[in-house]
Order: sequence, then C-alpha cells, then structure tokens
Amino acid sequence: MTEHSLWRFSRAFHRAINERQFADLEALLDDDVDWAIYGPIDLFPFFGSRRGKAAVIEVIQQISENVRVHRFDRESIMLGTDSASSMMRYSLTALDSNKPISLRIAHFAQFKAGRLTNFRVLLDSFDLVEQTVGYPIHLPRMAV
Amino acid sequence: MTEHSLWRFSRAFHRAINERQFADLEALLDDDVDWAIYGPIDLFPFFGSRRGKAAVIEVIQQISENVRVHRFDRESIMLGTDSASSMMRYSLTALDSNKPISLRIAHFAQFKAGRLTNFRVLLDSFDLVEQTVGYPIHLPRMAV
Repeated sequence: MTEHSLWRFSRAFHRAINERQFADLEALLDDDVDWAIYGPIDLFPFFGSRRGKAAVIEVIQQISENVRVHRFDRESIMLGTDSASSMMRYSLTALDSNKPISLRIAHFAQFKAGRLTNFRVLLDSFDLVEQTVGYPIHLPRMAV
Repeated sequence: MTEHSLWRFSRAFHRAINERQFADLEALLDDDVDWAIYGPIDLFPFFGSRRGKAAVIEVIQQISENVRVHRFDRESIMLGTDSASSMMRYSLTALDSNKPISLRIAHFAQFKAGRLTNFRVLLDSFDLVEQTVGYPIHLPRMAV
C-alpha cells in the first residue's frame, strides 16, 4: 500500500515553510494547480487565489518569509483515493515580530498522479488578525 | 444503499434555520453531541463550543433568529462511512438589518447510528465581521 499523497505533500509543504527548501514541494504540484487561501488579502498578500506551479511556489516562499511552523495537530481528517481534508491547529511564530500565533485552518486537497491539483484553505481569519495586530478589535455585539 | 447521514442532517439543519422546525434535527443529534463553531464569540454569542442535544438546539434556535439561508453551494465534499466534510458557500440574510451576507464555511461531521456526534465548523470570520458591521476594518498591512 502506497503512502497517501497528503503525507508527502504535508512533509514537503512544512519543509518549504521552515527550511525554505522548495524542490520537494515543486515536484508534488501539478503544473496547473488551482490554489486558494480564503482570508483578508489586503492584510496578508499571500492569501487569495493562484493558478499554476510558479505562482504557488511564490506564495509559499512569501509564507516562509513570514512565519515559522512550530507544531501542528490534525483535529479532523478525511482521506479519499485522490483527495483529503483536514481541520488543523497550528502553532506559528510571526518572523517580523517574533510573536506566537495559534491558528485553526481547514483544507481540502485534490491530487492527480500524486500531485496537488486543487487546494482550498479556510482559516479563522478574525482570530488571526487580532493575534497579528496584537490587540482585540472592538466592535459592537452583532446579535442576541 | 441508504442515504448518507449528511444529507438528512443538512435538510433538517436548514429546515431548523429557515422554518424554525427543530423536531427533525433533534432526532438526528446524539444526546451527547460535541459541537463547536470557531469564531469571535464576543460578537456572535452562538459561536463557540456546546455539549449535548439541548445546548445545540438552543444554539440553532439563536442562529435561526439571526439569519435566513437563501442558498448554499458545496464547493468541496468528502464522505466517509460515518463522517463527512464540506467547504460550503452560503448566501444569507441578517434578519435584524436585512443585509445580505456571503459566507464560506468548512465543516467536519461525525455520525453514529445516523446521529451527529461531533461537528466542527470553521468560517472566514474576518470577512463575516466586515460584512456584518458594514464597513471595512482598516488595519496595517501585516506582511511582505
């Protein structure tokens, strides 16, 4: 039984972020990969949609210049033949401020012949913004 | 082949939100259901963790008093024997302001004997907050 594509991708992804070694990851991206991290792109320019291997590698380079991953836990996971989804909790450091950031994300991934073809990431963006600016954002209570 | 628990749950959930009919949903919740919607609980008191059927029904009642669902699209979905995850895009109306809200969420669900035992929801909370207050939240550019 071969290893699920998610595990190879996950190792290569974290190696790219923390060691800035992109070769393993590049080999696991489909040339035409469709990529999106949903979140406030005005604040985090590496969020948003990208298409193709070069654009995705550029995004991951930007992420690697901004954060270091200390640890991640998969709280939920589903594996299909050529697909995977997880809910994960990350402990990061923001490299510019040296501040710790705790972040929950959900991802949905599709693979073809072991390469990532589609990747969608959602994260608790309000929590991320508050941790990044370092103060609570005061807003009116919205409901009930 | 029986219908996946997700579809029954989804119908009952949306009926509860839009028609405030909770009986179908109640029958599909495990007595000890473990429930969490991650997001700013100071702003949206129906976010956060709940345990047990009564607490979850109360949360869904609160949601039904605050929004109406116009439409939802499942952008990604994974189904296991007793589990499911989706990335979804909702078109909602906030009932107090009559404002339209477009919201992307991810959920991970586990079922036992057709009843929901575990439910985890993540959403693009910054986007939701901006739409709810009705103005962009100006913050410094964080990175790059």
